[in-house]
Amino acid sequence: MRRVRYSVAMSLDGYIAGPNGEFDWITPDPDVDFAAMFKAYDTLLMGRKTYELTRTHKGPGMPGMSVYVISRTLSPEDCPNVTIVRDPAPLVTELKRQPGKEIWLFGGGDLFRSLLEANLVDTVEVAIAPVLLGGGLPVLPETSARHTLKLASHQLYPKTGTLGLSYDLVGSGAA
Amino acid sequence: MRRVRYSVAMSLDGYIAGPNGEFDWITPDPDVDFAAMFKAYDTLLMGRKTYELTRTHKGPGMPGMSVYVISRTLSPEDCPNVTIVRDPAPLVTELKRQPGKEIWLFGGGDLFRSLLEANLVDTVEVAIAPVLLGGGLPVLPETSARHTLKLASHQLYPKTGTLGLSYDLVGSGAA
Repeated sequence: MRRVRYSVAMSLDGYIAGPNGEFDWITPDPDVDFAAMFKAYDTLLMGRKTYELTRTHKGPGMPGMSVYVISRTLSPEDCPNVTIVRDPAPLVTELKRQPGKEIWLFGGGDLFRSLLEANLVDTVEVAIAPVLLGGGLPVLPETSARHTLKLASHQLYPKTGTLGLSYDLVGSGAA
Repeated sequence: MRRVRYSVAMSLDGYIAGPNGEFDWITPDPDVDFAAMFKAYDTLLMGRKTYELTRTHKGPGMPGMSVYVISRTLSPEDCPNVTIVRDPAPLVTELKRQPGKEIWLFGGGDLFRSLLEANLVDTVEVAIAPVLLGGGLPVLPETSARHTLKLASHQLYPKTGTLGLSYDLVGSGAA
């Protein structure tokens, strides 16, 4: 079955963006093979805030990716090239049933929390940047259940001091 | 000069204790040489909340350690074997001038923030436990300045999947 992988850059104190959505603290490491990383996926999930951040920083687009944006407020006609979906759990349940490559949960923390609570996330992969942000968007907003992980791999990127950690989700319980 | 080392166990989502002060999620790894770790220090700093947690879990004491508890409310006569201090910055400035072993900033996050803002912390050492707590006492409560780190070392403890990361503080600036 296709996996849902929450793969994000994070500060050591647990933020995926600064207080105003900043991500200038993320230094892309020359040793990360982004092309190979992208090749593992054909589907991208993101919340509204993350989508709006990616729109303001006009990137090269996501060729070959099906992009789903979870939002109760955005209109499909205002959002070309992406599919707007209101409720993430039924969407992801259906996507996991379909054949295909892996599913990238691109952000943010609110969407991660929704899918975590629905037991629909398979891995948590964080690239820990060597910085304390002191505030911002948390990697996981507050939730009442604990989730146990299993470290699957770790890799140091010595040029930037970034540590890539990959965990499998193995269980959950009341906190 | 003696270093001040903030050395704590942390969940992947950045908490050093659960919502009610729980630390049952910390599994001491048999490969961590706690005796060697303790030997590096002769001085221990902690905030009031951390002190109260250590008191309720009667440990073996801290032989050979000078223990300072930062608190504006505790009475010295109620706290045998420790020194109660109101303001951490002058204390730590003075301790760093004196000869001795390293200084362990044992917790919690509030005291870390005070000393970080006063540029009195030398290293941040976190043992990342493979768990998402979803809430609790943050490793660093909100603060307005960013702090840049440099990864000094990392070590995997395979029996528990704990990752020990050690960072030097290299700079700070407005977020």
